[in-house]
Amino acid sequence: MRVKLTIEYDGSAYFGWQLQAGVDTIQGRLEAALAQIFSELVRVYGSGRTDAGVHARGQVAAIDLPREFSPIELKRALNALLPQDIVVLAAVSTNDDFDPRRDARSRVYEYRILNRESPSAFEHRYAWLVRDALAIEKMQAAACVFVGEHDFAAFRTLGSDETTTRRRVIQSDWRREDDILIYRVEATSFLRHMVRTMVAVMVDAGRGRIDVDAAGAILSSRDRAAAPAAAPATGLCLVEVRY
Amino acid sequence: MRVKLTIEYDGSAYFGWQLQAGVDTIQGRLEAALAQIFSELVRVYGSGRTDAGVHARGQVAAIDLPREFSPIELKRALNALLPQDIVVLAAVSTNDDFDPRRDARSRVYEYRILNRESPSAFEHRYAWLVRDALAIEKMQAAACVFVGEHDFAAFRTLGSDETTTRRRVIQSDWRREDDILIYRVEATSFLRHMVRTMVAVMVDAGRGRIDVDAAGAILSSRDRAAAPAAAPATGLCLVEVRY
Repeated sequence: MRVKLTIEYDGSAYFGWQLQAGVDTIQGRLEAALAQIFSELVRVYGSGRTDAGVHARGQVAAIDLPREFSPIELKRALNALLPQDIVVLAAVSTNDDFDPRRDARSRVYEYRILNRESPSAFEHRYAWLVRDALAIEKMQAAACVFVGEHDFAAFRTLGSDETTTRRRVIQSDWRREDDILIYRVEATSFLRHMVRTMVAVMVDAGRGRIDVDAAGAILSSRDRAAAPAAAPATGLCLVEVRY
Repeated sequence: MRVKLTIEYDGSAYFGWQLQAGVDTIQGRLEAALAQIFSELVRVYGSGRTDAGVHARGQVAAIDLPREFSPIELKRALNALLPQDIVVLAAVSTNDDFDPRRDARSRVYEYRILNRESPSAFEHRYAWLVRDALAIEKMQAAACVFVGEHDFAAFRTLGSDETTTRRRVIQSDWRREDDILIYRVEATSFLRHMVRTMVAVMVDAGRGRIDVDAAGAILSSRDRAAAPAAAPATGLCLVEVRY
């Protein structure tokens, strides 16, 4: 029986989603907990990787159960075994051909910026501290440049091996909650470091270092060297995967 | 020169505010950072203690500087030396007779309850997970019982040595933000474990284990044995000290 898991995690303590020898990862922790329950290897197939320090409120994964097990009991058993910073929010039985990566219609990420002079004891794991004044309306104007289907080659990390760098952005919006600026972006899928590099460009616009036309020029250039370094991983959260 | 500090901290990793030999405390970390700056002991006088695991968004403390130092530079230097979960939000020069404990007119605390079936990867340090259904209107009715001046002897921790157990509660209100219930309480001052024991009584009312009259009876009893065990420290935060 195939089960769809919805997973929340604080990525601060982990070396990202993907299983890797010798380092602590979310996938590794899930497979370790499943091995305790089933006494055998149960592979976890995620909707996509998240990098070290990136969080998730709605990562989706699929597993094939080696024997009968109620999904609700499985969720309870996993949460009893997992560390407190990884939580299974839902477990439901699904079709045997459900593929969390290929079946996803879109992914939604949020990026948080703490925009004030003082750091925060509570936000340091979940937001990028930017002390400079930020003009959110300029950041929103730059955000609108990204909506639609474009070649995001300027925003990929070098060395990634995607067959195409074209992606379709469905939503791209900033909002403010007190001294936190939150960017919400939905796309069919993302290149590695794409959101964080887009955020770096929009923050340059908000600081007044570049204007909105320059953000468009970076996109059109398809040249990674035209864009600034990616914003820190800590601010990024995979909010939802849509099917 | 006396300086008033406003301090934010995530208490998860600390053995409370108060300096104690052999354990990691907020006051201990502040004095260690000050010793690095001034090369001598600078005592930190807080508005009051917080227990292990309790957080603060607005703890207030006073220090006497052994030599001239701009408060703004002091704030920057402290934040550069302190761990990320302790932050000085403000440092301002104040009267030489400012006493953060005795001059405080009132303290404001908040207590957070995560009221859902699943634990949370993000809230486990900042909220008490209560899975039972909670009737917030019954919790609010119980909260109203505490407003005004009362003898809170039933809500103190045993072995505490306050001269009087009478306290005046100024505000006592619950609100809901999605699946989080937040209790906000302001009083002239609090007995040790008072807020957490009041929360335990109100949660019993919200679960339907006791009715509102019973909450009043616990208060009138002045008997610690009449009240349930204190709610966990993790949900509690010192929000503000008013002068």
